[in-house]
Amino acid sequence: MAITFQSPMKLSFITSNGFSNPPSLYPINTHFSFGFNLSSVSSKTQTHITIPEPEPVFTSVKSFAPATVANLGPGFDFLGCAVDGVGDFVTLRVDPNVKAGEVSISDISGAGNKLSKDPLSNCAGIAAISVMKMLNIQSVGLSISLEKGLPLGSGLGSSAASAAAAAVAVNEIFGRKLSVDDLVLAGLESETKVSGYHADNIAPSIMGGFVLIRSYDPLELIPLKFPFEKDLFFVLVNPEFEAPTKKMRAVLPSEVTMSHHIWNCSQAGALVAAILQGDSRGLGKALSSDKIVEPRRGPLIPGMEGVKKAALKAGAFGCTISGAGPTLVAVTDDEERGREIGERMVEAFMKEGNLKALAMVKKLDRVGARLVSSNS
Amino acid sequence: MAITFQSPMKLSFITSNGFSNPPSLYPINTHFSFGFNLSSVSSKTQTHITIPEPEPVFTSVKSFAPATVANLGPGFDFLGCAVDGVGDFVTLRVDPNVKAGEVSISDISGAGNKLSKDPLSNCAGIAAISVMKMLNIQSVGLSISLEKGLPLGSGLGSSAASAAAAAVAVNEIFGRKLSVDDLVLAGLESETKVSGYHADNIAPSIMGGFVLIRSYDPLELIPLKFPFEKDLFFVLVNPEFEAPTKKMRAVLPSEVTMSHHIWNCSQAGALVAAILQGDSRGLGKALSSDKIVEPRRGPLIPGMEGVKKAALKAGAFGCTISGAGPTLVAVTDDEERGREIGERMVEAFMKEGNLKALAMVKKLDRVGARLVSSNS
Repeated sequence: MAITFQSPMKLSFITSNGFSNPPSLYPINTHFSFGFNLSSVSSKTQTHITIPEPEPVFTSVKSFAPATVANLGPGFDFLGCAVDGVGDFVTLRVDPNVKAGEVSISDISGAGNKLSKDPLSNCAGIAAISVMKMLNIQSVGLSISLEKGLPLGSGLGSSAASAAAAAVAVNEIFGRKLSVDDLVLAGLESETKVSGYHADNIAPSIMGGFVLIRSYDPLELIPLKFPFEKDLFFVLVNPEFEAPTKKMRAVLPSEVTMSHHIWNCSQAGALVAAILQGDSRGLGKALSSDKIVEPRRGPLIPGMEGVKKAALKAGAFGCTISGAGPTLVAVTDDEERGREIGERMVEAFMKEGNLKALAMVKKLDRVGARLVSSNS
Repeated sequence: MAITFQSPMKLSFITSNGFSNPPSLYPINTHFSFGFNLSSVSSKTQTHITIPEPEPVFTSVKSFAPATVANLGPGFDFLGCAVDGVGDFVTLRVDPNVKAGEVSISDISGAGNKLSKDPLSNCAGIAAISVMKMLNIQSVGLSISLEKGLPLGSGLGSSAASAAAAAVAVNEIFGRKLSVDDLVLAGLESETKVSGYHADNIAPSIMGGFVLIRSYDPLELIPLKFPFEKDLFFVLVNPEFEAPTKKMRAVLPSEVTMSHHIWNCSQAGALVAAILQGDSRGLGKALSSDKIVEPRRGPLIPGMEGVKKAALKAGAFGCTISGAGPTLVAVTDDEERGREIGERMVEAFMKEGNLKALAMVKKLDRVGARLVSSNS
C-alpha cells in the first residue's frame, strides 16, 4: 500500500530529549506516530509520507468526549484526568452542501451559545480541520453539530472536550486511520489557538483516565492507570463566577523557590504513586498540597479557601482548583460521601464567597473520546 | 503490658500536612509510629509514653546496610534507592567494659580510616545512641565494630549506610522493638549531624528499594515497588576525585524558573511512574532529564558531561550524578550491557576528566538494612 500523508504541519521524526518553553505557534519538530509502523524511519531524517485520501465509511457519526480536570494541584501543567458522564457531543455529517475539503458548523446547542460558528475560530472546527488535513481529505465536505454539555470557562476542559469529540468524529467517519497520538496533536492545535499550548486537558479527554504529559517536543504521553477495583469519585463544584483568565495567568510566578520546587516535585511524585497504587486518600492529599499555583490563584476565586476547608471537614481526601478554575475539585472514595461533600462546598461558596454553585459527583472516565453512534 | 518510652526528642503525635524547610536541628513535632499500636493517642495531644527497658536477646549481632543512590535526577532531595551487594557492616557487642547506656566504637576497617571513633561524631555511633535512647537502654553498654564497604564522600550514601547498619544492629540486639520508621528517624538524626537533614539515603538504606520522602513533618515515606519480574541494573562509576561538598551545595540555585519547575516536576512524575510500571527505559530517561541540579553540579565533576555521553552512547537508558557525586549512575536492563557501559564510562572519565575511575554493576537492593548473623 502506498502510504501518502500530508500534514498541516511540517513533519519530522526527530526524537529529542529537549523541551522548550511552550512555543507560541505549533511546534515544527513534533514526533508523530501515525498509526502506521514508521519505526524504521530514521530519527534524524525529515520524511514526508503521504497516504491516499480515505473515503467516508459512514454518512454521519456522533461522538462524545469527556470533561477533564487538569493541573491536579502539584501536577500543574502536565497532568490531567477525564471525568465520566459529562462532556460534549459532536454530530458529524458528510454534507454535499459544504465545499469539498472543508467543514462548516451548522449549529451549537447546550452551554455553548456564545461560541463562534466560524470553523477557524471554533475549537471543534479547528480540530476537525486538523484531522482532515492529516487524512488529506480533499473530496468531501463535512458539517458539525456541536452539543455543549460543559459550561465555557469552567475549568473543566470545555474547549478540549469539543476538540476531542470533533477529532474523534472525523477520524471515525473516515475509518479510523489515525492513532490516539495524532488525535491529541490535532486537539492540541485547537487548544493552542483557543486556550493555550497545553495538552493536560486534550490528552485525557481523548485517551481517558489520568495522563501525564512528559514532553511536547516530541509529544510524549504517559497514561497512568488507576486500578479498576478501587473507587474514586470527583466532587466538582462550579460556582456562578467567571474566572478572570488573564489574572489567573498573570498571578503565576516566573520563578519559584528551591524549597517550594522540591516540595511540589515530591508531591507530584506522590500524586503519580497514589494514582498507580489506587490510593485515593494519598491522591487527595497530594492534590491538596500545591504550594505554588493554588496559593496564588485561590484568592481570585471568592470563598475558595473556605470551600476547600468545608470539603476537607466533610471528609474529602483533598481539594484544589480544577484547571484554571473557578470549578473546585475534591476527591473521595465514596459516592454518597461525595454528595455530602458537594453540599457542604455549595453552602460554603454561598457563605464565604456569596456565590451560587452547582455540585456534581463523578467517576473517573477510563475510555476517553468515543464513537456514540453511526449511520452508514 | 506497661508501655514506657523515653525519646531523645520531645515526642508529639501531631499529624499535619504542613512542611517546613529542613530545620537545622531535629524536628520537635515528628510523627512517630513506634511499632506499638498508638493509633488511639489523640493526634492533638502531646503524649509521653515509656516502655520498660528491654534486655538484649543476643550477645552480639552483625548487620549490613546497602549503599544508596539519592536524588536520581529530577528526584532531587526526595527520592532514593538502595543498591545490592555493596554497603557497610556493623558488628555490635554487649560489652561490660563500656559504661551502661553508652556506646563505644572499637574499630573501623575498610574505607573508613579517616572516620572519628568518637561515637558522638561518628554516624554509626550517633544512630546507635539514638536507637538506645528510643529503647530507654540504661543498663547495658555496647561496642561497635564498623566495616566500611563504601568510600567516604562518594555520593553513594556512605554515612547513611553506617547509620542504618548501626540502627538495625541495636534494634536487633534488643529484640526488634522498633518500627522501620523509628529506625529511619534514628538514622536521620545521624544524617542531620553528619551530612545534612535529608532522608533520601537513610530511608532506602533501611527500607530497601525505591523510597519517596513525601514529608518530614510528619515524616512520611512512600515505598515505590519496582516489579520483581523486571530487570534493572545500576552502573556506578566512582572516579578518584573528592567532590567539593561545599561547592556542590553552593551551586544550587535559591530559585528556579517556572518552566524548569514544571519540566522537572513532570519528569519526577514520569520517574515515579517508570519505577512503579517497571519501565527501566523510562526510568533512565527521567533520570537523565534534570534541568535544575545536574546542569549546575555536573561541571564541578571533571569530565562528567563526556562520561554521561559515553554512557548513553553505550546504550544506557539514562545517566546522572549519584547523590552529590562524584559517582555517576547509569541504568540499563542488561547486566552484560551494564559492564560495557561501565567500561566506556571509565575510559571517558580518563579521557575527558583525566580521572581514574572504578565501575560496578549492581541490582536494586529490595531488602534494606538487615541482620546478617547473631550470637546468643
